[in-house]
Amino acid sequence: MSFIPAKPGLVEQFSAIVGHANCIADDAGMQPYLNDWRGNYTGKALAVVRPANTDEVAELVKLCARTQTPIVPQGGNTGMVGGGIPDTRGNALVLSLGRMNRIRGIDTENNTITVEAGVILQALQDAAMSAGRLFPLSLAAEGSCTIGGNLSTNAGGTAVLRYGNTRDLALGLEVVTPSGDIWQGLKGLRKDNTGYDLKHCFIGAEGTLGIITAAVLKLFPQPQSSVTAFAALPSPQAAVELLGSMRAAAGDRLVAFELVSRVCLDLVLRHFPGTAEPFAERHPWHVLIELNDTMPDAPLQEMLETELGRALERGQIADAAIASSEGQARALWKLREDISEAQRLEGKNVKHDISVPISRIPAFIDKCDAALIAAFPDISLVCFGHVGDGNLHYNCGLPDQGLGKADQINSIVYAHVDESGGSISAEHGLGQLKRDEITHHKTKIELDMMRALKRALDPTGIMNPGKVL
Amino acid sequence: MSFIPAKPGLVEQFSAIVGHANCIADDAGMQPYLNDWRGNYTGKALAVVRPANTDEVAELVKLCARTQTPIVPQGGNTGMVGGGIPDTRGNALVLSLGRMNRIRGIDTENNTITVEAGVILQALQDAAMSAGRLFPLSLAAEGSCTIGGNLSTNAGGTAVLRYGNTRDLALGLEVVTPSGDIWQGLKGLRKDNTGYDLKHCFIGAEGTLGIITAAVLKLFPQPQSSVTAFAALPSPQAAVELLGSMRAAAGDRLVAFELVSRVCLDLVLRHFPGTAEPFAERHPWHVLIELNDTMPDAPLQEMLETELGRALERGQIADAAIASSEGQARALWKLREDISEAQRLEGKNVKHDISVPISRIPAFIDKCDAALIAAFPDISLVCFGHVGDGNLHYNCGLPDQGLGKADQINSIVYAHVDESGGSISAEHGLGQLKRDEITHHKTKIELDMMRALKRALDPTGIMNPGKVL
Repeated sequence: MSFIPAKPGLVEQFSAIVGHANCIADDAGMQPYLNDWRGNYTGKALAVVRPANTDEVAELVKLCARTQTPIVPQGGNTGMVGGGIPDTRGNALVLSLGRMNRIRGIDTENNTITVEAGVILQALQDAAMSAGRLFPLSLAAEGSCTIGGNLSTNAGGTAVLRYGNTRDLALGLEVVTPSGDIWQGLKGLRKDNTGYDLKHCFIGAEGTLGIITAAVLKLFPQPQSSVTAFAALPSPQAAVELLGSMRAAAGDRLVAFELVSRVCLDLVLRHFPGTAEPFAERHPWHVLIELNDTMPDAPLQEMLETELGRALERGQIADAAIASSEGQARALWKLREDISEAQRLEGKNVKHDISVPISRIPAFIDKCDAALIAAFPDISLVCFGHVGDGNLHYNCGLPDQGLGKADQINSIVYAHVDESGGSISAEHGLGQLKRDEITHHKTKIELDMMRALKRALDPTGIMNPGKVL
Repeated sequence: MSFIPAKPGLVEQFSAIVGHANCIADDAGMQPYLNDWRGNYTGKALAVVRPANTDEVAELVKLCARTQTPIVPQGGNTGMVGGGIPDTRGNALVLSLGRMNRIRGIDTENNTITVEAGVILQALQDAAMSAGRLFPLSLAAEGSCTIGGNLSTNAGGTAVLRYGNTRDLALGLEVVTPSGDIWQGLKGLRKDNTGYDLKHCFIGAEGTLGIITAAVLKLFPQPQSSVTAFAALPSPQAAVELLGSMRAAAGDRLVAFELVSRVCLDLVLRHFPGTAEPFAERHPWHVLIELNDTMPDAPLQEMLETELGRALERGQIADAAIASSEGQARALWKLREDISEAQRLEGKNVKHDISVPISRIPAFIDKCDAALIAAFPDISLVCFGHVGDGNLHYNCGLPDQGLGKADQINSIVYAHVDESGGSISAEHGLGQLKRDEITHHKTKIELDMMRALKRALDPTGIMNPGKVL
């Protein structure tokens, strides 16, 4: 791939649209936008622009369409797969939506909020809360990721079990199409069967079909009571069974059901001095459970005690701790939330963001663990995640940090994912990272349909080239 | 439009694929498939075929693709907009999926069921119940509609408030594409971000992009307690306010919130002798409320009494009746469910299946009522529906059954729908009925994207021509 020199005058034209201060073309100024936060991807660009509104986005895209300039939309730049980082040709425009951060309106009777793409997820959660509502999307990057990025990657997080993925929270979108037209699809309707539901084309498309500039999102009643527990279990199978009985009893009160392996818990205990083993004995597996309710005085603790008591009798759990204060609940959540950081402190490892049907989690872990240990006897398997929606973060540590072994490890893990009817990217998307890999896991028919969709909506291919497909 | 004669030998070739008994080509045998149940649409066809499995569907579609034979997929033929009825050219193949009615599997740990397109909705509900689970989709035609049709029209019904539309219940699809390929997308995953989510192209597309042959659907815990109430209100605004306070208090326990106007209630009382006015006085508006819970002894009655008591104090309701037995609950539901039939017995009227944001329901009803009464002083407005998801069935009766006035009535109603940011087809789809009308309510940008999608996935246009767009 050779470097294509900047088209003369293009940067000046970008600048004329967004204003000089919002068109960054110097190397130092562009750096934060050309590197991902984990240091895995570095790209080049003609310029980074920060439009103030949808009309400016449309003008920029029209100019790019005329000049065949590739566009890389970028939100909070918190992605895991390099989806928001341009390639190294240097001919792309990075279109950062951070300045479009207005909350356009909250409709409490319709339980909806209308926001621009650059609104930080936490600001969105706060705005909902100020209106006495819950916006349930919650994930580690919520302090810096933007809702536009969440929509473009169909972000998941910890509350999917109850509230679904970002896709499920969107009622309407405003999108700038690859020709620079503005599709005004900001409807706040829960029922609308008037032809193809176009918003689903753009959600999860990682900016390859158009630029999401605003959205109407669902709001929910705020929970008024909650309870958190941590249970010790003999096996993932016991966790799946407990999930079943818990869900049957608690219904939608069950909002989190997170798996934590022994290795994960040890990592957290080793790297975070304030943490403590929650049980008298060491156990091989754990789950973190959270229930909530809109009733202020809901009998959640009793419900949890009853179900955990029964599970203890059935031998599904070995021990359990129910938080009796918000401080205790936070301490239990820390044992789950600090796993990623503890892992990072431990050194690099080969990460997988996979999903399988919930019923197949136990066999997947058993067989995949065995195959990896056979191939790499000193491997350390850091397995945790959202059992409630079949999503495991299945990470592989090796004494030499897995250097040079990633391909072999991936091929073992992905073969077991395929055998289980699973997905090699549950919630992080494809971006640059899995763009080639996915071609080995989808049929030609499916890939051809994806390509047909791309050609139909972005016929000249200017939208985020080199991502997804 | 001229009649195109049958291609010689084509019927014999269809017959060779599905067997003689499942290829119907005589006029009398084809009649049930060429007319809709309401008697609004009549079409012609080369033949009606009833394939036994997905391979036969694929073979049929390949043959049709080779010979450029239009295909009209048909489920239970219970649609409201003529989507499953061919046009009158007589050159189409009607592909009825009724024989593909196997439940391929239930995975209780994954809370999913895998079914073929021809499974009757009620059989699906029953299969879920036998496995101790709930399949929540519920609508008037459930005894004869098929899940393939429900998916193709993204059917709604009475439980959307809590469980979403059919789209929200689907995790994976098997689809025969317009070239006769089988897309095997039957994944039972709650998180899968590996490129464009193709299932959303086919759901709600009314058979214009491919043929859904099977699906993996979500199951839910079975409710163990429920309570039903009927409340009298002064206005739709009071209903919207009550919905807000009810939802804040009950959260996901609130599964139905249905509006019934005075006119509707009178229609039911007049045509169904067993029914009775539920209150001592007559009131202009009513809502039917249902709460349920997975807890067998959930305090639903108290919750309802508390909230209705507060609403009474605030003047939001004038009276309320809470069912104290299942028989009473059924009697209250009948007041809502019998509206359609009571209306039919009263004579033809001009029907609308519309949605608006919940917050705009009161103003929509006020203004649209006023405009219609100004134009037609003797109009009778039969307004009822799913307030919880903004969906109103807003039907207009006139002494002469509205003969010749439908266009004028529609144009008044749809103008108010547009002004409210609403939809002219909330849950029934476009089919033949609203195919032209919709072009006046969507922008060129949106219509162009729909057409691009159609060309991308069905380039030769053989799938259900003349429907949707």
